[in-house]
Parts: sequence; C-alpha cells; structure tokens
Amino acid sequence: MSLISVGTMAFDAIETPFGKVDKIVGGSGIYVAYAASNFVTPIQQISIVGYDFPQEEMDQLKKRGVQLEGVEIVPDKKSFFWSGKYHVDMNTRDTLVTDLNVLADFNPVVPESYQGAEFLMLGNLAPSVQLSIINQLTTRPKLIVMDTMNFWMEIALDDLKAVLKKVDVLMVNDGEARQLSGEVSLVKAAKTIMEIGPAFLVIKKGEHGALLFHKNHVFSAPGLPLEEVFDPTGAGDTFAGGFIGHLAKTKDISFENMKTAVIVGSALASFCVEKFGPNRMKEITKADIDARLGEFVQLVNFDIDVVA
Amino acid sequence: MSLISVGTMAFDAIETPFGKVDKIVGGSGIYVAYAASNFVTPIQQISIVGYDFPQEEMDQLKKRGVQLEGVEIVPDKKSFFWSGKYHVDMNTRDTLVTDLNVLADFNPVVPESYQGAEFLMLGNLAPSVQLSIINQLTTRPKLIVMDTMNFWMEIALDDLKAVLKKVDVLMVNDGEARQLSGEVSLVKAAKTIMEIGPAFLVIKKGEHGALLFHKNHVFSAPGLPLEEVFDPTGAGDTFAGGFIGHLAKTKDISFENMKTAVIVGSALASFCVEKFGPNRMKEITKADIDARLGEFVQLVNFDIDVVA
Repeated sequence: MSLISVGTMAFDAIETPFGKVDKIVGGSGIYVAYAASNFVTPIQQISIVGYDFPQEEMDQLKKRGVQLEGVEIVPDKKSFFWSGKYHVDMNTRDTLVTDLNVLADFNPVVPESYQGAEFLMLGNLAPSVQLSIINQLTTRPKLIVMDTMNFWMEIALDDLKAVLKKVDVLMVNDGEARQLSGEVSLVKAAKTIMEIGPAFLVIKKGEHGALLFHKNHVFSAPGLPLEEVFDPTGAGDTFAGGFIGHLAKTKDISFENMKTAVIVGSALASFCVEKFGPNRMKEITKADIDARLGEFVQLVNFDIDVVA
Repeated sequence: MSLISVGTMAFDAIETPFGKVDKIVGGSGIYVAYAASNFVTPIQQISIVGYDFPQEEMDQLKKRGVQLEGVEIVPDKKSFFWSGKYHVDMNTRDTLVTDLNVLADFNPVVPESYQGAEFLMLGNLAPSVQLSIINQLTTRPKLIVMDTMNFWMEIALDDLKAVLKKVDVLMVNDGEARQLSGEVSLVKAAKTIMEIGPAFLVIKKGEHGALLFHKNHVFSAPGLPLEEVFDPTGAGDTFAGGFIGHLAKTKDISFENMKTAVIVGSALASFCVEKFGPNRMKEITKADIDARLGEFVQLVNFDIDVVA
C-alpha cells in the first residue's frame, strides 16, 4: 500500500540540556520516512535537498523502502538548515537559525510513478505547497493527513484554510489548535476546526500525550513517562509517520483503528526522543516497537467493573 | 469501612472567566467529604470552623453520612477564608486573600469514636498538624493518603519529610513533584519521592490527567476533555475524595485497584469543575458517576492486537 510523504530533508543543529550537535540530518520528511517504513513500503518521498545532502543518508532511506524519485537535488544550493536550543523543561525551545536555502524554491512535482498512492502525508510546509501536491494527484488518496504550525496561521491563514477543506486528518499541538480556533477549550477548538474541513483532528500535547477527535468522539493517548528525554526534535513528525504508517499497513481508516494509530505514533515518538536527531529511529526493530506498544497497554489499562 | 478525613471547611471567593461568587462554602475537607461519601460512610470529619459556618451545610454533610464530632466550632472567630482569581486558561490562578482566622489555632484532637478507622485522608494542612493526627491514632490505618502543596516545601520541608515517612500515598501536582524532588523528569521525581517514604505517588496534572507511580510501575489516567471548565476550585480535593472513597469501599489497596481509584477520582473531579464551588458535587447521583466512568473507559480504550 503506497504512501506519499511530503516534507523537508535538512540539517539541524540542536542544543539540549544533555548536549549538542552542530549538524545532524533532520527535517519532517526524514522522521516520517523512518517511522512509517516500519509498517509499510514503499514510502514515496517528495522533498528537496542541496548539493550537501549526504548520499549515505539517501542510501539508508532506499534500503528501508523509501523511493526518492520525488526528491529534487539542487546542485548549486545548500539544504534547508534549522538550529534550535531547548529549555530545561524540554517542552519549549528557541529557534536560533532558519536558513531556507533550497526550500525557498520548493515547487514539488509529483512523479508519474507516485500517482495512485492511497495515503498522503503532508508534512509541515507552506499551505500553498501542500495544496499544489493535492491538486497534482489524479486520484484522490483514500486518506490525507496534514501537519502545520502556528507560523502559517499567522502569515497564510486563507491558504491554510483552503488546504484544511481538502484533508481528512489535521495534526497540530494544543497551542496551535487554540490559535487556529480562537477557543481555549480543546473540545470547542476541535469542533471549530473540524467544521472547517478535516473529519479527524489529532491534538499533540508533548509529554502529556495526544487527543484524537472525530464527530462527538474523543480518544486520549498518554505520553509514556520517560526517565530522560534526550532530544524532542522530530517527535511530532515521528508520531505522524507512525500514525499514517499503521493506517496504510492496515488499510483501515475507521475511528477505532485511528485510536490504535495514535498509540503507534506515540510509541514511535517515545523512541525518537531517546537520542539526538533520528539516530534512535535508525536502530529500533519490530521487537522494540512491539515491546513499547505493550508498555502503552500497561500504562492505561485499568479494571472499572469493580466500581459499577 | 470508616474513613477519617482531615481538612479545611471554609468560605471561598472565586472569580473565573465565567463569573464570580463572593462567598461560597469550600475547603479541602468539604470536597473530600462530598466525593468520598458517594462510596463509603461514615466519613469521620476532622476540621475547624468559626461562628459563621452555616448550620445548613453541617446538616447536609450529616445527611450524607459525614460525622462531625471532630469538627471544632470556635464561637468567637470567623471561618478560614480564601479568595482567588483564575486566568483565562483556567490552569493558573492568583490568590487574592488568605484569612486564616480559626485555622491559625487548629490543633485537632482525634475523637475517641474515630479510633480504629482503616483509612485516613490527610488534606493539605501544615505538616505538623498532619503528623499530630497520625500520632494520635492508637491503631495505624490500613492506608494513609496525604495531600500537600509547594508552600510547605518552602517553609516546613523537614516537617513535611517527617510526615512523608509515615504515609502510604502522596498526592501532589507536577510542579510540586519537581520542586520536592529537584528532578525535571517526573519518572525520576517519583523515584526520589518514593525513596523518602510513600510507596505510592499520585502526580496530578490538571486537564492532562494524573499519573500513579508504585515501585517500577506507572499508570496514566487521562483528563476528560471538557467543553467548559467553569471553576477548577476543589478539583484536586475531589479527586482525593473519590480516590480514597473507592479504596475504602473496596478495601483493596493493591496497585491494580489504585489504578481504578485514580480513574474514579478523575471522574469525580470532572464533575466538580462544572459549577462553582461544591455545587455540582451536591447534585450528582450514582448513575451520573457510573455514566462518567463509562466515558473514561471509552476515552482510553484501544485495540492493539492489530499491530502485533
């Protein structure tokens, strides 16, 4: 079951209370690919990189079943670069540098060989780019999942709303859900956002887990309490990759199965934060993932019969 | 199965974005009594009030099975008074007034008729008062649950640690757990705090739910996503009352049953915030509680078999 993933492939410089790296591969497309490829192949990648992006990384992705025909390589420009520093609580960070480089000219063309994909993951990008991808697809995918961020709400709200009308699932964090809806209550925020377009809304709450809304239903996934969060970079994209990877594998887009997908995404994200960048995502096995899923079952399992 | 509850009975003035009340009955002992009496009677109350505390409130409590022999009435002083104003997000508040009044002289004496109680709820009070209660009991209760707050960590840390060595369950919020332990990670904070004394730790996270720690086990209870939080006052005490009420009813203090107790406490707290002060707690029925517990089951229920 093929899955198109659109997102950045980049370099990050990251500083956390536990250490720093000056240059590590990152970007939403990288994290989605590493997470989703645990469940489904091929991942049909759409992205743009500069002359400096390592061939070794490309080769690793190919080995995992990631197709790179849709990744444009610009020979005379550098790859997108982001630098950030996390605060002590790891829930907040300051962006130090954003060098768009190749991303400034990102006008992706969907390869002919990608047409017919049943699942589409739109990573956080300019809404106009996200919309262009949707419009290029000759057959509408069975499921379109979209990530975005507060930045686009501030400078491209109309474009953002146009994309929202065309997607099935929106993923944002709690602050972004409140900003987009103008509502403090996440329940009210969810109703307002779903009225714009998406039938499903995932609200990511970092260490506090995630909420999945659909019609009048809500599902709460816990965050796995971790002894150490080493580097949160990419956790949200990893969540997205696990979420859509599970759905693409099972070909079941019911609310019931999306609940499971939220748990799968949470489990994958809990690995991502254990090492810098995507390093941990390159190591984990199917057995690691199954064990972690078992921890999530234990984490929320309770017996209520005794009360009634 | 009798349960001793020690806590304040007071007047509150509360302002939220939805309205204000100048004088409403409140205090930790009130909320614990209303919550716990849904599950077990008698509640053997220990508190102190002034001449101004309404007889009508006393009568309502008696009707619910709350024994008041341990409630001292000071004829020439006013009851404890607290006034607070909530911020728009309802997660934070400013304390405007704290008039200790009778609470300044609170040296509770455990009535002889209360001796032999199997469950003890120590509401948030000076640690020296909490310790005095424990020391007056001729038979150690089967379970001692303790609430506290950051204030006591700042001015009475040694006393607080002395009480911690004698209790089974500590309840604090996430900020307090971090402050008490000096650890940012809640998992590390829990280990540090349990090493001081309590075998169980409940970390309350407001709208994000609660965590229960015991040895190497952890359980995550969700917060029920609510369309409107009208007044959070007393939600933590209501949680405590539901928690210990369920345990006292079932007489089962295993980790497994404490998980259920955390859900029961969360369900009760989700009612508390629906109206000002304890008003909603006076209305709800057993059927309301059972329906709400059903919502919690739905909220976290997922099928993971499909993944493995």
